[in-house]
Amino acid sequence: MATSFTVGTSPNLPLGPGFSRDVIRVGVIGYGYWGPNIVRNFQGHEKADVVAVCDKNPKSLARVRRAHPEVPVTSDQMEVLTSTQVDVVAVVTPVWTHFELAKLALENGKHVFVEKPFTCTTAQAEQLIELADRKNLKIMVDHTFLFTGAVKRIKQLVDDGTLGALYYYDSTRVNLGLFQHDCNVIWDLAPHDLSIMDHLIMAKPEAVVATGANHLNGHADVAFLTIYYPNNLIAHINVNWLSPVKVRTTLLGGEKKMLVWNDLEADEKLKVYDRGVQMMSGEAVYQQLVSYRTGDMWSPNIEQIEALKVEASYFIDCIRNNKRPFNDGEAGLRIVRMLEAADESLKQKGRVVQV
Amino acid sequence: MATSFTVGTSPNLPLGPGFSRDVIRVGVIGYGYWGPNIVRNFQGHEKADVVAVCDKNPKSLARVRRAHPEVPVTSDQMEVLTSTQVDVVAVVTPVWTHFELAKLALENGKHVFVEKPFTCTTAQAEQLIELADRKNLKIMVDHTFLFTGAVKRIKQLVDDGTLGALYYYDSTRVNLGLFQHDCNVIWDLAPHDLSIMDHLIMAKPEAVVATGANHLNGHADVAFLTIYYPNNLIAHINVNWLSPVKVRTTLLGGEKKMLVWNDLEADEKLKVYDRGVQMMSGEAVYQQLVSYRTGDMWSPNIEQIEALKVEASYFIDCIRNNKRPFNDGEAGLRIVRMLEAADESLKQKGRVVQV
Amino acid sequence: MATSFTVGTSPNLPLGPGFSRDVIRVGVIGYGYWGPNIVRNFQGHEKADVVAVCDKNPKSLARVRRAHPEVPVTSDQMEVLTSTQVDVVAVVTPVWTHFELAKLALENGKHVFVEKPFTCTTAQAEQLIELADRKNLKIMVDHTFLFTGAVKRIKQLVDDGTLGALYYYDSTRVNLGLFQHDCNVIWDLAPHDLSIMDHLIMAKPEAVVATGANHLNGHADVAFLTIYYPNNLIAHINVNWLSPVKVRTTLLGGEKKMLVWNDLEADEKLKVYDRGVQMMSGEAVYQQLVSYRTGDMWSPNIEQIEALKVEASYFIDCIRNNKRPFNDGEAGLRIVRMLEAADESLKQKGRVVQV
Amino acid sequence: MATSFTVGTSPNLPLGPGFSRDVIRVGVIGYGYWGPNIVRNFQGHEKADVVAVCDKNPKSLARVRRAHPEVPVTSDQMEVLTSTQVDVVAVVTPVWTHFELAKLALENGKHVFVEKPFTCTTAQAEQLIELADRKNLKIMVDHTFLFTGAVKRIKQLVDDGTLGALYYYDSTRVNLGLFQHDCNVIWDLAPHDLSIMDHLIMAKPEAVVATGANHLNGHADVAFLTIYYPNNLIAHINVNWLSPVKVRTTLLGGEKKMLVWNDLEADEKLKVYDRGVQMMSGEAVYQQLVSYRTGDMWSPNIEQIEALKVEASYFIDCIRNNKRPFNDGEAGLRIVRMLEAADESLKQKGRVVQV
Repeated sequence: MATSFTVGTSPNLPLGPGFSRDVIRVGVIGYGYWGPNIVRNFQGHEKADVVAVCDKNPKSLARVRRAHPEVPVTSDQMEVLTSTQVDVVAVVTPVWTHFELAKLALENGKHVFVEKPFTCTTAQAEQLIELADRKNLKIMVDHTFLFTGAVKRIKQLVDDGTLGALYYYDSTRVNLGLFQHDCNVIWDLAPHDLSIMDHLIMAKPEAVVATGANHLNGHADVAFLTIYYPNNLIAHINVNWLSPVKVRTTLLGGEKKMLVWNDLEADEKLKVYDRGVQMMSGEAVYQQLVSYRTGDMWSPNIEQIEALKVEASYFIDCIRNNKRPFNDGEAGLRIVRMLEAADESLKQKGRVVQV
Repeated sequence: MATSFTVGTSPNLPLGPGFSRDVIRVGVIGYGYWGPNIVRNFQGHEKADVVAVCDKNPKSLARVRRAHPEVPVTSDQMEVLTSTQVDVVAVVTPVWTHFELAKLALENGKHVFVEKPFTCTTAQAEQLIELADRKNLKIMVDHTFLFTGAVKRIKQLVDDGTLGALYYYDSTRVNLGLFQHDCNVIWDLAPHDLSIMDHLIMAKPEAVVATGANHLNGHADVAFLTIYYPNNLIAHINVNWLSPVKVRTTLLGGEKKMLVWNDLEADEKLKVYDRGVQMMSGEAVYQQLVSYRTGDMWSPNIEQIEALKVEASYFIDCIRNNKRPFNDGEAGLRIVRMLEAADESLKQKGRVVQV
Repeated sequence: MATSFTVGTSPNLPLGPGFSRDVIRVGVIGYGYWGPNIVRNFQGHEKADVVAVCDKNPKSLARVRRAHPEVPVTSDQMEVLTSTQVDVVAVVTPVWTHFELAKLALENGKHVFVEKPFTCTTAQAEQLIELADRKNLKIMVDHTFLFTGAVKRIKQLVDDGTLGALYYYDSTRVNLGLFQHDCNVIWDLAPHDLSIMDHLIMAKPEAVVATGANHLNGHADVAFLTIYYPNNLIAHINVNWLSPVKVRTTLLGGEKKMLVWNDLEADEKLKVYDRGVQMMSGEAVYQQLVSYRTGDMWSPNIEQIEALKVEASYFIDCIRNNKRPFNDGEAGLRIVRMLEAADESLKQKGRVVQV
Repeated sequence: MATSFTVGTSPNLPLGPGFSRDVIRVGVIGYGYWGPNIVRNFQGHEKADVVAVCDKNPKSLARVRRAHPEVPVTSDQMEVLTSTQVDVVAVVTPVWTHFELAKLALENGKHVFVEKPFTCTTAQAEQLIELADRKNLKIMVDHTFLFTGAVKRIKQLVDDGTLGALYYYDSTRVNLGLFQHDCNVIWDLAPHDLSIMDHLIMAKPEAVVATGANHLNGHADVAFLTIYYPNNLIAHINVNWLSPVKVRTTLLGGEKKMLVWNDLEADEKLKVYDRGVQMMSGEAVYQQLVSYRTGDMWSPNIEQIEALKVEASYFIDCIRNNKRPFNDGEAGLRIVRMLEAADESLKQKGRVVQV
């Protein structure tokens, strides 16, 4: 059993007496694009310590040492997964490794923070949920967007009835690259919208239609999803790795008000429009009258805290107070179920797949 | 047989000697939203005269008289359709009337200029094409966008190889209203994109997937179309009558360059990006390397002439010189075929429909 | 004395019994860029008739005849100025002709509607005001912007105290051309802002500083104005005929709220920001604390009526009910006084000129 | 004489044998808003080491220790200024302290890197330049913007004649705060533009006109500068701490082409317009004809390197190879001279001040 995480010339901080049991000890596996943010935010939390970072790439470990000289590093996942000094394992690796790493972590009695998407299959997700429940451990799936000021504000506007009954959710999430070699553009970009929709729309989706095309590496790089919900609520997601411009815009249409969320705006990310349409039946078929409402627009000020900081803090709180996070394994499973259905539909050029 | 078009107190201009046979005489049926533009542009052409405008609505006729005191008006379609003083009938009425009016016009020996979409069914379109061919008359379907400076410039960029092989065409065409009571949002807004794609992409579409939902008057007011073309070229159209903001943006991805067309920009409608992606296979599966190209952007200056003026002039020229317009009945039929297929797909929640 | 305005083959409508005395008869001198809007809006008013349009350019008169076949035209100004059939003369000519034409009109007993800027000098403006007062005639200076939905809404926000005490008015009004050969860019573009400021800020300006440069035709084509008001309110106007892009943006800073008016936006022309700064003095000089307020933004819906239509209607109403318009000769004089002062300052490279 | 920089519990790294003389040793005074960037960029340079950071605020020193545990800290400026272990002193403190600190550094034989603006007065700047020259030491004034990809690209476009002779430089640099308690908005924001103009326009300015107003803390918080150059080239700078929105836009008009630089754009910061105006004299005064050119727009791709990294590297290179930086004390002096002149003009409400 490993008791230290030293690699090469990294400083060897002793674990143990130096760390109060009040503090949740986090081991991070994977220090690529997103890992540094995970380490920084858990390390910045006063009730958490990052006690190990693992990555197979020596250059990544060198980056850890530069940014966090006080944090031990290792290239051996098992050291983190089996250490008695670790309470939480954060799995920040490619999706196809999530299941194995999370399973090992849970089996070794660690809580698990996993990158989205949760797993490659619903079967894997169900197995992890069952395992965590049995061992009374927490799973949090990193649906970071749910902790942004923008989504929290939209959630309020939906929940307090400001928008009225929802008509549609329509998101465009396109940019040039980054091509993934192990998944298509849907698995890369759509989980953001799928998790936001899961959070905002308190209804079970009924069916998925996915279309798309691949041009470069055999995976779909342009794709379009339609998701049917009850009561004629329809959702649509446009994802594209081949767009010359970056777009992050979501339209949310409601009976009472409509909303545009442009996440690339520095200020005024959200605009709420007092606009709508009402039908008034006349006597004859051609007298069907339409009344349009065009009122003020309003851009609510939104909280500016880093989403991942809020999320890390929430996870620490859930562990310390034995609460189930809303972005738990079940939430992760719901997204994986949609992704599986989308893949099935995509393979058949857009066949409707019930979920 | 009617020889005058007088209605109420409108001036009664004598037809005949006053009009040289060099001049094409146009009768316009329908003076609602688009009719005034048709009248103004044919009337403004030096080799054309609008010799009659017909509308059932007295208020519309009053508007004609104010704007064009010199033009005779009538509320009787047959006067226009059967007049010996009329060479061309412009049908600017709701789509479900196109077939009957165009058929009568052709049977009476008139060339026909028809609003888009051409007809309600492919069978109707085929019948009109056959009739026009048999009587050696011209049909032009008013796909106005094909005559805009923007589309003409894009056509050049596609045809001269600047963009390279096309990867995708992705258009967003959304706004609040105007609700149509006799068709869904696809028939209202998608013909623009379908005709532009038909013009730019010199390939036959293979299949259509359409999804959507209706919230107010029983017709789909939000809809999403995917059109599959050969060689992995994919097209997508997002149409919506319930958007709080107006968007008219099209992304066109090519192997060599990519283009964004924002038709709501006063200047800089087109932006051509020297951006792209190239795959370079490494030895192992994880070594698949992606190279991104991010170069200059360039916004070509585009012609500022009113599209409908160019189109009207082109039709007059086609008639005078016995040329077949590229936006002829066949072009109209190809769009109607796509619309029919989209409706069929929509009814089945997104089933792939071969075309 | 002329009793008809016929020129060439224009229809000769008889004046007199056909026109009720309820109707104000307007003669328009000048049919260049702005004249057509003046004619259309007075002619569209149910209590006004345009009974003559005069222009020296035969091509302009031909344009009148095409657009308004019912309106008599002439190339002789005196016909309009002296006609007994004319109640109001609209002077829509270059600024250096305003004085002479308005003076003749007033001397002949006509009310006068004059383009901005009112006159070339304050002396001329004062003479016209005196003349009109003596003869009990109305002068309206065409400060069209004051009748736009945007300015009317801003006026409300200022008057009802929403913005609080004003700190600054800062306007950028730049584009490529149109070069005037008889005045500099200040006289061409700044009257808009000067009249808006005159309307919004109920205080007398104290001094003007104008800087600028000329590059092409001997008149300043780039210029910057600062206008000092009491209570540290400062105004600034940036005008430029040599800008590659068109900008029409005004910032209005107030103690309580701040406003951005972008007149080129189709929607959301006005944005009101709940932002501000408050000083809280600490004990020592370095403890001066600043508190920033960053709240919601709000874009009020604004009236969409054509400003000139509202203005024409207002003038007709002022004449019929013997009311003094707020954009009267005095208002015109105040703007001319600022322009004169700006010119004087400009000549001395920015010397402060008291007004 | 201090040989260590330890404060409190900070690690005490020995200076001396551990540092090769190949490496330039940098001591940084001031770790407020900008200091962290200075430390990070010198520390990141392979031929430089930050050997001390000084700040009077213990919280700032704690921030240093968290970000750079390996860097010694101190609250005593003299330790840095007199240490034999320091080759370069970076003065990153409020402007009123620059002179004293830089003077001490030079007197102690250190090269000096000073924040902009260089000094409070031209006399101070001249004294520092003379001192550095006498002791053969380098001064670099931190005009960071000169090292951005945008300014480097504009410099090329000016130098290679793409824009042609310059007509005007017009910059808007406004936002809400940050209020400085020891200087007005001109000294805070205008140095950016003044240094950019100094770099781009290879001509000596002739005169300055500055207007402005103060509303909160006794210093001008809104101000407008005009700077006159030879050949009718005019520059204008709009600075404002009370703007509800942040703007960083510069227009640069040239005889051949015009340029808009929007520094807040993520991409497409620069747009070069092939637009212009040409005068063609006709026979009479009213025949003066203007010809407008409206061609393509082009947005050159610009380098994405952090400007301060390039600048730090350049300073290290200047020291090692005994080269005089272009942003030397003389460049700093030229900016201070403009600021002094602007203050003088501002005090007199816009009097023209020759420079």
